[in-house]
Amino acid sequence: MSERETYIYMDHAATSWPKPNEVIEAVTEAMKHDSANPGRGSHAMAVRASRILFNGRKQLAKLLNIKNPNDIAFTYNTTMALNMAIKGFVKQGDHVIASSVEHNSVRRPLHALEQTGVQVTYIDADERGRFKLDQLQRSMQHNTSLVIVNHSSNLLGTIMPIAEISTIVHEHGAKLLVDGAQSVGIIPIDVEQLGIDMLAFPGHKGLLGPQGTGGLYIAPHIELEPLLQGGTGSQSEAPHQPLVRPDRYEAGTQNTAGIAGLAAGVQYVARVGVENIYQHEWELSQRLLGGLSEIEGVVCLGPALGEPRTGIVSFYVPHIDPSEMAFILDQHYHIAVRSGFHCTPTAHNAAGTSERGAVRASVGYSSTVEEVDRFIAAVKEIIEQY
Amino acid sequence: MSERETYIYMDHAATSWPKPNEVIEAVTEAMKHDSANPGRGSHAMAVRASRILFNGRKQLAKLLNIKNPNDIAFTYNTTMALNMAIKGFVKQGDHVIASSVEHNSVRRPLHALEQTGVQVTYIDADERGRFKLDQLQRSMQHNTSLVIVNHSSNLLGTIMPIAEISTIVHEHGAKLLVDGAQSVGIIPIDVEQLGIDMLAFPGHKGLLGPQGTGGLYIAPHIELEPLLQGGTGSQSEAPHQPLVRPDRYEAGTQNTAGIAGLAAGVQYVARVGVENIYQHEWELSQRLLGGLSEIEGVVCLGPALGEPRTGIVSFYVPHIDPSEMAFILDQHYHIAVRSGFHCTPTAHNAAGTSERGAVRASVGYSSTVEEVDRFIAAVKEIIEQY
Repeated sequence: MSERETYIYMDHAATSWPKPNEVIEAVTEAMKHDSANPGRGSHAMAVRASRILFNGRKQLAKLLNIKNPNDIAFTYNTTMALNMAIKGFVKQGDHVIASSVEHNSVRRPLHALEQTGVQVTYIDADERGRFKLDQLQRSMQHNTSLVIVNHSSNLLGTIMPIAEISTIVHEHGAKLLVDGAQSVGIIPIDVEQLGIDMLAFPGHKGLLGPQGTGGLYIAPHIELEPLLQGGTGSQSEAPHQPLVRPDRYEAGTQNTAGIAGLAAGVQYVARVGVENIYQHEWELSQRLLGGLSEIEGVVCLGPALGEPRTGIVSFYVPHIDPSEMAFILDQHYHIAVRSGFHCTPTAHNAAGTSERGAVRASVGYSSTVEEVDRFIAAVKEIIEQY
Repeated sequence: MSERETYIYMDHAATSWPKPNEVIEAVTEAMKHDSANPGRGSHAMAVRASRILFNGRKQLAKLLNIKNPNDIAFTYNTTMALNMAIKGFVKQGDHVIASSVEHNSVRRPLHALEQTGVQVTYIDADERGRFKLDQLQRSMQHNTSLVIVNHSSNLLGTIMPIAEISTIVHEHGAKLLVDGAQSVGIIPIDVEQLGIDMLAFPGHKGLLGPQGTGGLYIAPHIELEPLLQGGTGSQSEAPHQPLVRPDRYEAGTQNTAGIAGLAAGVQYVARVGVENIYQHEWELSQRLLGGLSEIEGVVCLGPALGEPRTGIVSFYVPHIDPSEMAFILDQHYHIAVRSGFHCTPTAHNAAGTSERGAVRASVGYSSTVEEVDRFIAAVKEIIEQY
């Protein structure tokens, strides 16, 4: 049997696997034939490398309805994109609002800013991770410059009402930064229609590209202080970062081969259709949720059966340590899940699991009904034999 | 004829090409079988991903005589490593010294810091790019906290006297940051012996790894304010970055497959021997320099024949625009070089080429005598027919 048949990967929220063949081929081909330094030099291979970057931007722009591909800056990962957005936008004396189910990639930069006098308010989530719009409305201040929302909680799978949040944010003259770590390539996104000012995203999760890729969409009306200064291959003589995009936000050598793979991943996602991917993951998450809920002793977190969610189902069993459950699933069943605290302590507070943590099973584009059923059967067996 | 036979790549200072087969294979294999999220989750594939990162650190530590592999933080590129080092170390009121042949990846972050009240002194280089130790000695102030030196100029190929600089720096209680963009994997480096406190390096140049990789060595006695905050997979409940290395300096998902390729590149370099790579590149640069110097009208920059240098030979021809020379080399001879300003405006000042720029030919581990000879013949032919 192949690796795919004997191994059940349910850790898509951490990174997607397996990558489509065309993603691996695009990386390999680019490394072999096109990996000169993009934007540095005008020779044939450097031009091909530049085209790979532009093609990546173009595919992403099409997927997310971004008018100008140059409004997308490539980054190492989502965390770098979020740090760029938060630290580049927020000024001393500003007030920032974020949801209480943010990942540490938002909470930790905000904590660092709080040390410099920036004021931060967290909007509560209920125990299912639902955002409280009325509390947001009440929390907006005259100096609120930025609101940051996780599009989908990486612990609970809850989907945030971005359009409604955006309306409130813009009514008060603030800007909206969306953390798309769990949504880009999984939930249809139209940045214009949703009123997103900045969107941070990973290349290696829903977009099925390689690790070491990610990006930040920066709307044309948003101006950031660059997080990194360095060579851009343009305006070499200027002592500051050039104003022109994307150079302003992309210092140093970019990941040409990785971005070739990311572009292939985006094309794969576009061909399948984000709506279809969402539908597929939703159906599997419902099956997962239904099956787990029927097992005595299992407590599932996040939205109820029938409600919208991404492919994340976290749960715990009161008398079994989540890390032990994950260990047995790995060792005896070759099933990969994540246990612990998932880099989001306050989402655990909301869900009431801040003491024990949780087991997180997350499905992806390649997950199957059979895998979900084998997973449920394994959890059942573990609990029965415990 | 294969691509390698018809195409002459002389842009190794921008990025090395071709990559050894084992580098490409390591990336492909890791993407296929091991690219879970390292440090997130304890399942078999996540453990394999973590091991890939640790192996990368271990290989690098061995090559550079770094005692603890965890003192190496992976980054997107050298620019990110330099920004981490500079912004994480320098405090308001500090005085910083750098050489005048620094790349924009050092000059631009320093320019940004100057806006916040940090004082910066640049040490002149002579027209061959040589560092003036006596000027450094005289420039050290009571508040000089950091001295930054390009190990080898990316325009001139000059090699800086790191050990001598280090002695002066430490006598005055300051720390030394070395930009190893053009030296790591090319010039033998022992961080202990040279007294290097921080070393920024690319994965995709002398180490023959893929783009999207790089790193920063941070000596155990150096404490940086992290440039990025985010998820680390450790101490999830803490609102700040964990103190433990490398987590403190590595926020978000790392480039597992890229680092697998980097480790393979480092092993390749170690097997060949950095001394042998240096010797090979030096011999080719001497042949290049000798051959070009014999052509009437060619003016070569950097160290004289017989002097130490990396594989970089930049030159100009007074009546031919460098970009036109590069264009003809590319279009008619399939030779890849870089023309223009090479992200280092003040090195051009030193060399007297700040108006015209220069053509930069740079050889690498895979360059051959035949390639160098064909390149010299091409330049000769272009000048004769111009």
